[in-house]
Amino acid sequence: MSLISVGTMAFDAIETPFGKTDCIVGGSATYVAYAASNFVKPIKQVSIVGNDFPKEEMDELRRRGVHLEGVEVVKDKKSFFWSGKYHLDMNSRDTLATDLNVLTDFNPQLPEAYQGAEFLMLGNLDPTIQKKVIEQLRIRPKLIVMDTMNFWMEIAMPQLEETLKLVDVLMVNDSEARQLSGEFSLVKAAKEIIKMGPKYLIIKKGEHGALLFHGENVFFAPALPLEVVFDPTGAGDTFAGGFIGHIAKTGDISFANMKRGIIVGSAMASFCVEKFGPERLKEVNKADIDSRIQQFVDLVSFDIELV
Amino acid sequence: MSLISVGTMAFDAIETPFGKTDCIVGGSATYVAYAASNFVKPIKQVSIVGNDFPKEEMDELRRRGVHLEGVEVVKDKKSFFWSGKYHLDMNSRDTLATDLNVLTDFNPQLPEAYQGAEFLMLGNLDPTIQKKVIEQLRIRPKLIVMDTMNFWMEIAMPQLEETLKLVDVLMVNDSEARQLSGEFSLVKAAKEIIKMGPKYLIIKKGEHGALLFHGENVFFAPALPLEVVFDPTGAGDTFAGGFIGHIAKTGDISFANMKRGIIVGSAMASFCVEKFGPERLKEVNKADIDSRIQQFVDLVSFDIELV
Repeated sequence: MSLISVGTMAFDAIETPFGKTDCIVGGSATYVAYAASNFVKPIKQVSIVGNDFPKEEMDELRRRGVHLEGVEVVKDKKSFFWSGKYHLDMNSRDTLATDLNVLTDFNPQLPEAYQGAEFLMLGNLDPTIQKKVIEQLRIRPKLIVMDTMNFWMEIAMPQLEETLKLVDVLMVNDSEARQLSGEFSLVKAAKEIIKMGPKYLIIKKGEHGALLFHGENVFFAPALPLEVVFDPTGAGDTFAGGFIGHIAKTGDISFANMKRGIIVGSAMASFCVEKFGPERLKEVNKADIDSRIQQFVDLVSFDIELV
Repeated sequence: MSLISVGTMAFDAIETPFGKTDCIVGGSATYVAYAASNFVKPIKQVSIVGNDFPKEEMDELRRRGVHLEGVEVVKDKKSFFWSGKYHLDMNSRDTLATDLNVLTDFNPQLPEAYQGAEFLMLGNLDPTIQKKVIEQLRIRPKLIVMDTMNFWMEIAMPQLEETLKLVDVLMVNDSEARQLSGEFSLVKAAKEIIKMGPKYLIIKKGEHGALLFHGENVFFAPALPLEVVFDPTGAGDTFAGGFIGHIAKTGDISFANMKRGIIVGSAMASFCVEKFGPERLKEVNKADIDSRIQQFVDLVSFDIELV
């Protein structure tokens, strides 16, 4: 089962109540690749970087089965850079700098070898670019998953609406779901968003877990209660990577299997926040992941008899 | 299995984005009684009301197996009155009026017939009064559950600490858990609070569900995603009533059964918010409750194989 992942590969400078980093590797497609490569190979990466993106990072991704033919390297420009500072609650943050750099030139051309992929993960990007990627695929993937954010709802709503018509699964956070739908209740928001195109909607609520909506079905997955959330950067992308990694590994796009995908994504995200950037994701092995998934099983399991 | 429930029986005037009520019946012990009486009889109520508390309400409670011998009626005073207005998010509210009235005289004397009760639910009250109730019981109940709020942490912390030493289960909301422990992480907060006395801690997170902590064990129960939260008043007390009602019905104070109690409490709370005051709680029957509990089962159920 092959997976195309489209998104940014970038540098982040992050400040949290627990510490501070200078430039470390980040970007949505980086997190998706580190998470998903635990479950599926190859991952056909589509991104753009500058002349400053570390060779060691590229090598590490290759070792994990990530194909980089679709990653454009711009010789005379720098990689996308984001800098932010988290508040004490770790749910809100201030953006200190956003240097688009190479991202202004991003106009992905899918390599011929990427054709025929069964799964497509569209990381948060300009919806026009997301649509162009879909249109380049001669055979429609079995499942197209899309992430987006409030920024595009504010400056490119008509384009976003066009792209939404083409995807199967949309992932947004709770405030974005409210903004996109104009509804405060997440149940009502889900109904409105599903009318816009996606058959499945995943609402990420950070420390409060995630919801999956499809028709009349709803599934809720908790986040793992953690002693320390060290750095939430990339948690949403890591969640997406675990989700699509599990779906691509199994090839099963049923609602029941999407529920499992959400648990896998939540488990991967719970690792991501334990250290700065994707550092922790590089350390975990299969036993760690299995043990973390078991924690999720234990966290919500109960048996009740209706008597 | 007999249950003593201590708390307020009062009037509320409530304004929500969906409507407004004048004086309707409320109070923590009222909600506990309406919720718990679906599961256990008798409920030995301990409270205080004024000359204005409706006879029909007393009769209705009696019909549901609630003993009112421990409810003092003060002839020349009015019942406790609270008035509040909810914000659009339904999680925050402004208190518009708090008329203590009879509550200033509340010095509960347990009727002799209440002795020997196996379960004790202490609704949110002055911790000194909560302690006095515990001390009047000649045989310690099998399980003592206590609710409290930030107000007592601010004005009566030493007394609250004394009472905490005497109880088995504490119920607070997330911000109260943080305030009581001085820890932001709920996992760390739980560890600190459990050192203060209670062996079990339930953290209520409103629309984000509830957590149960005991030793190294954690259980998470979601809240049901609802299209409309009409009025959240009493949801926490209703949750408490469903919880202690299930525990008292089964007589089982194991961790596994407390998990079930939390699901039952969450189901009852999800009814409570559908109409003003305890109105919806008066309507639901066993079939409604079973069907609602089944929705909780479906909401979180998934099967995953660690392969």
